[in-house]
Amino acid sequence: MITTCDLLKNAKKISLNAPLSTEDKNGALKAMASSLIENCEEILAANDLDVIKADGTVSEVMIDRLKLNKDRIEAMAKGILEVANLPDPVGKVLSATEHNNGLVIQKTSIPFGVVAIIYESRPNVTSDAAALAFKSGNVCVLRGGKEAYNSAYAIVKALKKGLNKCNINEDYINLVEDTTRNSANELMTAKGFVDLLIPRGGKGLISACTQNATVPCIETGTGICHIYVDKDADVDMALKIIDNAKTSRPSVCNAAEVCLVHKNIADKFLPKLYKNFYESKRVELRGDANVLKYIDVTEATDADFDTEFLDYIMAVKVVDSVEDAVEHISKHSTHHSESIITNCEKTADYFTSRVDSAAVYVNASTRFTDGGEFGLGCEMGISTQKLHARGPMGLSELNTYKYIIKGNGQTR
Amino acid sequence: MITTCDLLKNAKKISLNAPLSTEDKNGALKAMASSLIENCEEILAANDLDVIKADGTVSEVMIDRLKLNKDRIEAMAKGILEVANLPDPVGKVLSATEHNNGLVIQKTSIPFGVVAIIYESRPNVTSDAAALAFKSGNVCVLRGGKEAYNSAYAIVKALKKGLNKCNINEDYINLVEDTTRNSANELMTAKGFVDLLIPRGGKGLISACTQNATVPCIETGTGICHIYVDKDADVDMALKIIDNAKTSRPSVCNAAEVCLVHKNIADKFLPKLYKNFYESKRVELRGDANVLKYIDVTEATDADFDTEFLDYIMAVKVVDSVEDAVEHISKHSTHHSESIITNCEKTADYFTSRVDSAAVYVNASTRFTDGGEFGLGCEMGISTQKLHARGPMGLSELNTYKYIIKGNGQTR
Repeated sequence: MITTCDLLKNAKKISLNAPLSTEDKNGALKAMASSLIENCEEILAANDLDVIKADGTVSEVMIDRLKLNKDRIEAMAKGILEVANLPDPVGKVLSATEHNNGLVIQKTSIPFGVVAIIYESRPNVTSDAAALAFKSGNVCVLRGGKEAYNSAYAIVKALKKGLNKCNINEDYINLVEDTTRNSANELMTAKGFVDLLIPRGGKGLISACTQNATVPCIETGTGICHIYVDKDADVDMALKIIDNAKTSRPSVCNAAEVCLVHKNIADKFLPKLYKNFYESKRVELRGDANVLKYIDVTEATDADFDTEFLDYIMAVKVVDSVEDAVEHISKHSTHHSESIITNCEKTADYFTSRVDSAAVYVNASTRFTDGGEFGLGCEMGISTQKLHARGPMGLSELNTYKYIIKGNGQTR
Repeated sequence: MITTCDLLKNAKKISLNAPLSTEDKNGALKAMASSLIENCEEILAANDLDVIKADGTVSEVMIDRLKLNKDRIEAMAKGILEVANLPDPVGKVLSATEHNNGLVIQKTSIPFGVVAIIYESRPNVTSDAAALAFKSGNVCVLRGGKEAYNSAYAIVKALKKGLNKCNINEDYINLVEDTTRNSANELMTAKGFVDLLIPRGGKGLISACTQNATVPCIETGTGICHIYVDKDADVDMALKIIDNAKTSRPSVCNAAEVCLVHKNIADKFLPKLYKNFYESKRVELRGDANVLKYIDVTEATDADFDTEFLDYIMAVKVVDSVEDAVEHISKHSTHHSESIITNCEKTADYFTSRVDSAAVYVNASTRFTDGGEFGLGCEMGISTQKLHARGPMGLSELNTYKYIIKGNGQTR
């Protein structure tokens, strides 16, 4: 048993080595993917222990999140191979300046060093996060939920075997053994040892990290995403987009939770929304008083406009203008993704220039906020804050930079 | 009197407007510069109050930092005009992707929103920080030290007059009236109101901010900068660079504090360093036991290797190898600027790839770590952390980004 403190000291030490070459990293990623497949039985046996322990104590949905099978392990391995095929973000010259005294100043991308990830029960996060952190040149410290500890341990063991096979220090990938709150707190406050902390999970975990972390931390995740149907919207397009944004995968953070409707289009739009969602019992609508004038749906409480339902539920509100919509969003959004449906370019520009969210859409579904869809190839999470990275975080966002300056005796 | 809380609410509201045009911002900056000159007498009178109050209670150096005169106010005005001439960082398309379904995804630079700056007694920081925050499209909230409050108030009053003259909301620039710790704590924890907090000042202030801030915060400043004289160094070049790095302006953060010397060159190098610095009484050298074998200087304590002297004092240590030098730096550096003096490219590469600092030099003085010297045109401070910005922060570093995505009905 290694303490979190010793684990961090060792991780920091490794991170101070020169970055691994692209070739070495890609070779190791391929070995890690193979090792997951080779150790499939062992991982499934470990996962069984977690599932048996959880059975009866948590919801079916949670059990499903936790449970692995051969297909899921193969998908994890495939994910690692995809990361191997992505371009290496490390060592890029981001900008170069030649000083008039001859100094050459190169802003060069480098790994953060030690990246810690605190997450919850989905076992695939273990391999995803490890692969992304490793490819971006970082030493990763994984701290998963106790419900999935056996699974995470078996997965990390397999990944380490892959590293060993390539003669790369297996401690590039680390799993924290202590799954109590103590270890989470240690990671949040390990100044000088954790160069970047990324919490991945529910609201409680993320706010604990942003409140308590004294190490650099990126807030991810929760998405109270809005779709605003402007007076100049194409009603059929609006319906199609809202349907997609709400129902294609309601449990993810880029799903829409709130629909704002301009008062001038409410009579045309709301009955159709009602028919598509409420009458057909596909989605529960919760409307404010003005919505209830048009359609007979559940009455919304104030809290409904501040809730990430992650379910077949949508809050609906009538607004007076695009200004009113933007103001509502500024008060209730989690700065993840918002969309306007309009044919008026001026109104669209008003919306995109004022809505302060990671992704602001015109006439498209919020469901596109995703590393793969944005061309990043992968994703470590979606940042909902503004420092360093905003929106989907790919490999480049797991790098920082330093200035390397070469001279021949220059003084100032 | 406006409370900090009300001031922040108002600042946030203004920050949600569409960004000002480049033309409007530059016009306003010119008006602010003129207004500083026009209100010179009033500013000097206010400054006198601060100086009289401080006189006898603080050092001469502190009084000199605090004191304004006509030349210094003109320099402040000139600084604002220089900011007006810099390119506007806002609204740049940082990258663009067209999804194969036709969605156009543009990563676009935008201001953070509300930028709060907590600083100490130098009055020129008030106008510098205000100009940089304003040009980068942010609403700024300045919270200076109580010793310079009258000066800061008069300067902000003049800047606001400039904004008014251009019909721009004067509350783009704000001064916190409360100079007790309460207001600093309020800024550090104003989640949802402060989008970026930048502390500028001594170690105590900066560590208070990084320890207590729950809003995004950038650590700036303290520099325990190292110069490593390798066995393959040109001794004369090393002496020239160290002289410049130590003595050209010892009170700034990019000045060198520690000299590490390879054991194989110690006998050639140290007596010359002694002659240039110690014998001539220009710089006090504090050497470790191995240094004392070569030259008769003050004996260094352990603490000397962790001290930002900001004075004519330098700690000196003999190391066994470049590996040893890098290890010492990794333990004692503040990650600001370090330099290696060597003619061996391989050793230089070892050093630049492993030293984890914002600026890593080969054969040049650490004194170049500066926004102007790096081609940024200006500087809000020097970040010594890795999240978002590293090294000198110019206008671009005071921007974040959002994704603006335009479609015609796309769903996923």
